Amino acid sequence: MRRIGMLTSGGDCQALNAAMRGVVKTLYNSGQQVEIYGFLDGYRGLIYSKFQMLTGKDFSGILTKGGTMLGTSRTPFKTIQDPDENGLNKVEAMKQNYYKLQLDCLVILGGNGTHKTANLLRQEGLNVITLPKTIDNDLWGTDMTFGFQSAVDIATDAIDYIHTTAASHSRVFIVEVMGHKVGWLTLNAGMASGADIILIPEIPYDIKKVVDKIEDRNRKGSGFTIIAVAEGAISKEDAKLSKKEYKKKLAKRIHPSVSYELAEAIQKKTGIEVRVTVPGHMQRGGSPCPYDRVFASRLGAEAGKLILDNQYGFMVGYRNREVVRVPLEDVAGKLKEVSPDATIVQEAKLLGICFGD
Amino acid sequence: MRRIGMLTSGGDCQALNAAMRGVVKTLYNSGQQVEIYGFLDGYRGLIYSKFQMLTGKDFSGILTKGGTMLGTSRTPFKTIQDPDENGLNKVEAMKQNYYKLQLDCLVILGGNGTHKTANLLRQEGLNVITLPKTIDNDLWGTDMTFGFQSAVDIATDAIDYIHTTAASHSRVFIVEVMGHKVGWLTLNAGMASGADIILIPEIPYDIKKVVDKIEDRNRKGSGFTIIAVAEGAISKEDAKLSKKEYKKKLAKRIHPSVSYELAEAIQKKTGIEVRVTVPGHMQRGGSPCPYDRVFASRLGAEAGKLILDNQYGFMVGYRNREVVRVPLEDVAGKLKEVSPDATIVQEAKLLGICFGD
Amino acid sequence: MRRIGMLTSGGDCQALNAAMRGVVKTLYNSGQQVEIYGFLDGYRGLIYSKFQMLTGKDFSGILTKGGTMLGTSRTPFKTIQDPDENGLNKVEAMKQNYYKLQLDCLVILGGNGTHKTANLLRQEGLNVITLPKTIDNDLWGTDMTFGFQSAVDIATDAIDYIHTTAASHSRVFIVEVMGHKVGWLTLNAGMASGADIILIPEIPYDIKKVVDKIEDRNRKGSGFTIIAVAEGAISKEDAKLSKKEYKKKLAKRIHPSVSYELAEAIQKKTGIEVRVTVPGHMQRGGSPCPYDRVFASRLGAEAGKLILDNQYGFMVGYRNREVVRVPLEDVAGKLKEVSPDATIVQEAKLLGICFGD
Amino acid sequence: MRRIGMLTSGGDCQALNAAMRGVVKTLYNSGQQVEIYGFLDGYRGLIYSKFQMLTGKDFSGILTKGGTMLGTSRTPFKTIQDPDENGLNKVEAMKQNYYKLQLDCLVILGGNGTHKTANLLRQEGLNVITLPKTIDNDLWGTDMTFGFQSAVDIATDAIDYIHTTAASHSRVFIVEVMGHKVGWLTLNAGMASGADIILIPEIPYDIKKVVDKIEDRNRKGSGFTIIAVAEGAISKEDAKLSKKEYKKKLAKRIHPSVSYELAEAIQKKTGIEVRVTVPGHMQRGGSPCPYDRVFASRLGAEAGKLILDNQYGFMVGYRNREVVRVPLEDVAGKLKEVSPDATIVQEAKLLGICFGD
Repeated sequence: MRRIGMLTSGGDCQALNAAMRGVVKTLYNSGQQVEIYGFLDGYRGLIYSKFQMLTGKDFSGILTKGGTMLGTSRTPFKTIQDPDENGLNKVEAMKQNYYKLQLDCLVILGGNGTHKTANLLRQEGLNVITLPKTIDNDLWGTDMTFGFQSAVDIATDAIDYIHTTAASHSRVFIVEVMGHKVGWLTLNAGMASGADIILIPEIPYDIKKVVDKIEDRNRKGSGFTIIAVAEGAISKEDAKLSKKEYKKKLAKRIHPSVSYELAEAIQKKTGIEVRVTVPGHMQRGGSPCPYDRVFASRLGAEAGKLILDNQYGFMVGYRNREVVRVPLEDVAGKLKEVSPDATIVQEAKLLGICFGD
Repeated sequence: MRRIGMLTSGGDCQALNAAMRGVVKTLYNSGQQVEIYGFLDGYRGLIYSKFQMLTGKDFSGILTKGGTMLGTSRTPFKTIQDPDENGLNKVEAMKQNYYKLQLDCLVILGGNGTHKTANLLRQEGLNVITLPKTIDNDLWGTDMTFGFQSAVDIATDAIDYIHTTAASHSRVFIVEVMGHKVGWLTLNAGMASGADIILIPEIPYDIKKVVDKIEDRNRKGSGFTIIAVAEGAISKEDAKLSKKEYKKKLAKRIHPSVSYELAEAIQKKTGIEVRVTVPGHMQRGGSPCPYDRVFASRLGAEAGKLILDNQYGFMVGYRNREVVRVPLEDVAGKLKEVSPDATIVQEAKLLGICFGD
Repeated sequence: MRRIGMLTSGGDCQALNAAMRGVVKTLYNSGQQVEIYGFLDGYRGLIYSKFQMLTGKDFSGILTKGGTMLGTSRTPFKTIQDPDENGLNKVEAMKQNYYKLQLDCLVILGGNGTHKTANLLRQEGLNVITLPKTIDNDLWGTDMTFGFQSAVDIATDAIDYIHTTAASHSRVFIVEVMGHKVGWLTLNAGMASGADIILIPEIPYDIKKVVDKIEDRNRKGSGFTIIAVAEGAISKEDAKLSKKEYKKKLAKRIHPSVSYELAEAIQKKTGIEVRVTVPGHMQRGGSPCPYDRVFASRLGAEAGKLILDNQYGFMVGYRNREVVRVPLEDVAGKLKEVSPDATIVQEAKLLGICFGD
Repeated sequence: MRRIGMLTSGGDCQALNAAMRGVVKTLYNSGQQVEIYGFLDGYRGLIYSKFQMLTGKDFSGILTKGGTMLGTSRTPFKTIQDPDENGLNKVEAMKQNYYKLQLDCLVILGGNGTHKTANLLRQEGLNVITLPKTIDNDLWGTDMTFGFQSAVDIATDAIDYIHTTAASHSRVFIVEVMGHKVGWLTLNAGMASGADIILIPEIPYDIKKVVDKIEDRNRKGSGFTIIAVAEGAISKEDAKLSKKEYKKKLAKRIHPSVSYELAEAIQKKTGIEVRVTVPGHMQRGGSPCPYDRVFASRLGAEAGKLILDNQYGFMVGYRNREVVRVPLEDVAGKLKEVSPDATIVQEAKLLGICFGD
């Protein structure tokens, strides 16, 4: 008998259910006796021992369902060792629950924050397997994370919708795309939707270059311009500030995002009407796209296989179109950014896309 | 030889191209000689004589295209008789251009503002036929306007996306839906997506009732609540203010929409995390839905027939599933609102939806 | 305490779950004690007493789900009074189960065949309420049936997909659309997708007129033609045959549908390559469109209200945008066809669409 | 001045326009003088000198458009050296037109057949750059072809639609997926849609194993089974036949595809109702998915760069997420198949999917 704990942590995204289904189907199909303990609402469920026993039926029909059947929460601690408000040591609580339920392994689905905690639990001696979930695609050690392509699809749809309005009204439209501190999502959705300007955190932008591009388009008779802006985009000026100074500046903004500031600057310099659209949380929702369903299922299956082989301490990742195992200590705390020299960026520039640099 | 002028005015929406294609195909198929003058960017094109001669080719392949091939603008005058910044009398300018081009008729596609001007031109002696375009469905004299169902589809998708995230995180989500001063769009998108609370301008809401509903859901174990809020929604308190006082209050808001104010109130009273999503201009964009394509084509065909019959001064509307002609003077300046007693509202209440009243 | 039986019968379609949810939510929200008995696989469940007790939980999250949670089957009898293979009188069996479970009412969701049986049960003294479900929109007494608009959306998508291929290859493409014996689905999907020729059962076609239209398009430089053909379309020649003769002819066809025969005829007469696409059962599947979700929810709510008012013997229908009750005896056995003189057909002709007549 | 010829050949697919836009935007943005000659309807345009001069305007707004703006045709010769019906040597004709127009290079977008001809033209001394277009993903030398992911999306949607119907009616559903002689499309769409059985050409199936899986599902209470069948799937028995014998057998089939034969066999052996759905050409149509838009744009940009660098004789391919150049002689005449031992197949089996082997 194998006892497997499972939890999803951090912001939800598409294909979490597909990935969990992949793990569980693989375990059940192995012919071995398996018990699945689903912890609710991320690490909270493990800390406070809130869980459900799951059976095959629970995983039927969830391949195409968005969200996570287990619920999730942002990691509920700044420092994981810190006691909670009742003085409970959270790491100790998780360990105790793990041992009390006689778990053979924890399967943890999450992004960067989640992986730090997962690695800590591994260091504390628990058997851990992780799966790379995030619409940001910013996890180190894997070419791809599930949720990403689904989010690209939704953000692209959003910009496509805006396109017809922008063209009809001869306006500048800014669409703010998610992606946390990296530009993967914006870069791909921007290229997919024919955005004229793409601004990402890895390439701080010069407002003059942005304005030049808009005015150049107007001169050539394209009365409108579409700008895809990453939520983490930053101007060259702001990039020179210290982290502390920048935080202070952000705190003073009425809108926390850079988009409205950018809109104001463009409107002031060009006199053209600028509109901002922020699809926001929509980008995490809905049914996973076919790419993500296949991808998450594959990762889930390989995670199941690792468990059957008693191989722990890995994130199941993807490199060169093959599923690979990546040691957890290599993943935790690192960020996979868009290199300003990446070929995809060079190609986008060949196509005439302006990055403001 | 018939000379037909055509223009689209006001905010763009889906199926404008489909409707114009319907008019033009009908005229061409009649076997009569026809010249189509497409005025650019709404009434501006007519005032300043900016137009394109259009041929059959221009209308090929546009049935499914969003936006408007002619461009559009909000009516560029407060009072239409007012001179522009160069002292030009705009109404006179439009009349002169109409007569100079020896037009037989103007086909005008637009919403409420557009219809006021169209009626004025009719009073001035021009031959006018209008088509009811707006995602708001607030035009008097017609059961339906094109753009509406397409916008319902997009707004519903948006709430569907949010649904999975809301459920995964046990949050309250407010999705702000367009619709100007009426609730049609929010009511339909809210019902279609299973929103728990729907707030529309026609039914001012009591914040206590909203909070009660959220807390009732939590008691019953549904950790999340979805609220569809019309951009024009208003609280009972604010509804008691005079127009002037309310405008003053709005002007003081950081966010012009009611959604953020509502979010703050709910968070304060329930302690539950509340998130706001504003799909915004996305709701006007993209390819028209099949319903709108058929509907706009039908209206366009009937407008073409009216022209062939030399029948002018009408909006082509839709009542009881049949296309009808409505005298322009009956349409202009009226608003079609959701009656708080409408059966669809009663039915929504039977389903358990809270309107905050 | 009210005991309500519920079943879905006939071909499945979109929004069956939405409609059932509407009924049940209305009953539960009434504050009265209610028990819901869901009979499985259509009338079979009622005949053989296969059912599930359903609770509020079963109806959570099904608004957007395609298919039917109760399963369905085609009416399993030619003559309902006929005994089954074990000599069981099916009508008697249904009555006995109805009384044994002390039901107050049966809610039956179905199309034409289903309504005949439902009316028979009413005549036998059972309390029956029906809801008009069919992608064919051929039910008498209601302007609209749920499933229809969702099927229009899918069929339109199918033709849209084919459009790009047809245009790229300069071919004639026939897309066969469902709709049983009527043309509503084909007419709407054809108009929505810009089909050049639409062939429906109500307007028998002359192959010469079809070929003329194709050749006329070629002369004008449109190298391709899209034909939307209803599965029940019929040529003028075949329409002259007696029912028996036509059935014989159909039986000899390799492909039961008219599309392949039509394709061969066109290819022979024009020499142009013709391809046939049959989306088939896809048209009944997937999540209901927003229109159908609202519509089915409204009908369900009104059915719930009828039950609370002890009003039985009605189909809940839709006329002039309002939900109405239609006596079952008026519905059963009638067909709502497209009139060849309907204004929508006239409008389609104004747009240049050829019906082959 | 650079003179670039461009043509699309073979079955059309999504993102052909996006790829051509990528090439042309890169050339125009280089600041060099460029003339683009678009040959119509594949190699035919080059043979018979049918072409259009294209300008920047022609490439505006086509990123999201399906099909090919140049038209296409299947390679119009069995042996390319063969004279056409008027005795014209086609290869010579293409060479002459190439030199007459003083072309610097031909950009050819196509699949396997197209690449054989492209390589021949290269051997004849023409400067050729190719781009890998096919929904089959069967081109050697590249991990991915554009059109593939869009087709996966459509085929997955089709199976998703069928899912609700199959579940509601307790039937077996066969969905026939395109893919020519390889199983990539079926494998991915099948995994994405949760198909229970996937049959591909590379893994001949044993009908007994297929039937066992269906019966096993029924025993476990899943009343329905979804089978994704590649159009090139083959039974173990048929795989033993010589090519000639198999062709003979195919010729005798009423339906050329294996699906109907398979359906009959299953129905006979299980008694369960089996339905076949063939989405067919729909899979090549419609707007490219965001993945394909980005991917095709990237390949197009790199093709443009090769031209600017005077590098010819390559297919622009994709390996390990980077765009690469592959010598044309290495590509032509080879097929990229699914290995029965591929990890993705192993993973699918871990998930419980039956391949009939």
